[in-house]
Amino acid sequence: MKFESYIEATKRRVERSLDRLLPLEETYPEVIHRAMRYMALGGGKRLRPLLVFLAYRWCGGTGYPRRVLFAATAVELIHTYSLIHDDLPAMDNDDFRRGRESCHKKFGEAIAILAGDALHAKAFELLARTGNNRVVREVAQAIGTDGLVGGQVMDIVLEGKTGVSKEELYYIHRHKTAALIMVSLKIGAILADASPRYLRILTSYGEKVGLAFQIKDDILDVTSTREELGKTTKKDKEKVTFPAVFGLKESEHIAQKLVDEAKQLLPRNDWTPHLYSLADLVITRKA
Amino acid sequence: MKFESYIEATKRRVERSLDRLLPLEETYPEVIHRAMRYMALGGGKRLRPLLVFLAYRWCGGTGYPRRVLFAATAVELIHTYSLIHDDLPAMDNDDFRRGRESCHKKFGEAIAILAGDALHAKAFELLARTGNNRVVREVAQAIGTDGLVGGQVMDIVLEGKTGVSKEELYYIHRHKTAALIMVSLKIGAILADASPRYLRILTSYGEKVGLAFQIKDDILDVTSTREELGKTTKKDKEKVTFPAVFGLKESEHIAQKLVDEAKQLLPRNDWTPHLYSLADLVITRKA
Repeated sequence: MKFESYIEATKRRVERSLDRLLPLEETYPEVIHRAMRYMALGGGKRLRPLLVFLAYRWCGGTGYPRRVLFAATAVELIHTYSLIHDDLPAMDNDDFRRGRESCHKKFGEAIAILAGDALHAKAFELLARTGNNRVVREVAQAIGTDGLVGGQVMDIVLEGKTGVSKEELYYIHRHKTAALIMVSLKIGAILADASPRYLRILTSYGEKVGLAFQIKDDILDVTSTREELGKTTKKDKEKVTFPAVFGLKESEHIAQKLVDEAKQLLPRNDWTPHLYSLADLVITRKA
Repeated sequence: MKFESYIEATKRRVERSLDRLLPLEETYPEVIHRAMRYMALGGGKRLRPLLVFLAYRWCGGTGYPRRVLFAATAVELIHTYSLIHDDLPAMDNDDFRRGRESCHKKFGEAIAILAGDALHAKAFELLARTGNNRVVREVAQAIGTDGLVGGQVMDIVLEGKTGVSKEELYYIHRHKTAALIMVSLKIGAILADASPRYLRILTSYGEKVGLAFQIKDDILDVTSTREELGKTTKKDKEKVTFPAVFGLKESEHIAQKLVDEAKQLLPRNDWTPHLYSLADLVITRKA
């Protein structure tokens, strides 16, 4: 199947799954379900669920089994929860997300905090439903203080500081963004009963692609408008970003190099071209 | 073993486990680990971990196996995360907790939000380490919108409203407080391979004891000082509480009735007297 067709088909499956697995807006207490669905179903690239499936396929898995769909849906819910909390006034204070009001702007801060918490819990319910304990544990570790949360902490602690080191810059991006991308690939591989070698390769691939993804995000923040990105731009001036530390041109170069390295890691099989295309897409995307 | 001795011994085990399973304060990024430990190790009744062990014992389990300690520690981390988020300015806006500053007061709002998120993730890491997927799933369901978060949502939505129904009052308490208490008993039972009948009995016991616990909390808020409780009191005036709806005397009567009913549910075995004592403690406590 062509890359674009597979991506589109998988995105549709994931969106149907999100729609089906989240409580309906009419379910009591309605407001929290409205907030959760507003954020989880309001567009998005669905990159992390795609990575779950691409890894699963690359490691020999077939079709769209329920347990893989649970895992793919779960990582998207985690991504959504982290965006909601990240947008809060006490954090990045962002009023726009995916072309519309951010969660706290639309539903108030209290409901936004709780919607994030509820999506977080829902994600682990779905991960448990994969029937695979290792999947639960890998994700939990990837989103704690040695992963996603650790990256967010340093992103906030170092905001506005001068003299930030390259190690700190890499730490933030590796944890804030690459950790969830890496674990998405990893659990796809685990659910396909991948060999330790394949798991290692995909983890390295994910780290490079994840870093490239965040660098591209930072570049787009500088070079795009709010209309193009659907979120507030030029907001990262105080943030520790690759363009701020290396400049735009060198940042693009680093991202390209990471993508090239990621592709070189992969032994060839039927699904390798798709992982190549995905890596390319990460830095050629316009939003 | 006497009830008090078992309670004390188990509390010590749980506190040692919390201390050992949370990253050290020196671990990078230090501030988030300081915040997590400040809140998780800063005192507390450890009621929920005690319930995990009492249920485990009542269902025939023995000793302090690692997987049960993981589960007991996890429910305490979830309780701690929910206190941190609940104290936030956008939620209950509470500056004191357990006799000292609340998390956001001491570390700032951003770190408090992230510390809650990190404890939430850590809890699921520990639940996964029990090796029992059903335990993960039960807890995840108990703390989502059909449990803890659902209760918090209605607690906030109905704050300051008049004409709140008794159904709404019960909904809030059952979800906000009883759900985590029920699931603590349930996972203790699951880890002891309890029969479906014992699971059902403990769940009903937990619902009644959990409701009684929250009623007593509301009573103490009215009748105690900040020094006695270690948190701001007389704060619940705008809240939907049992004393507000039924008055103090009738609330005490309802709590006592729930405890009596909870005790009557239990078939007798060696550990039944401990579950009786625990139920009594819930409404005789002074803080």
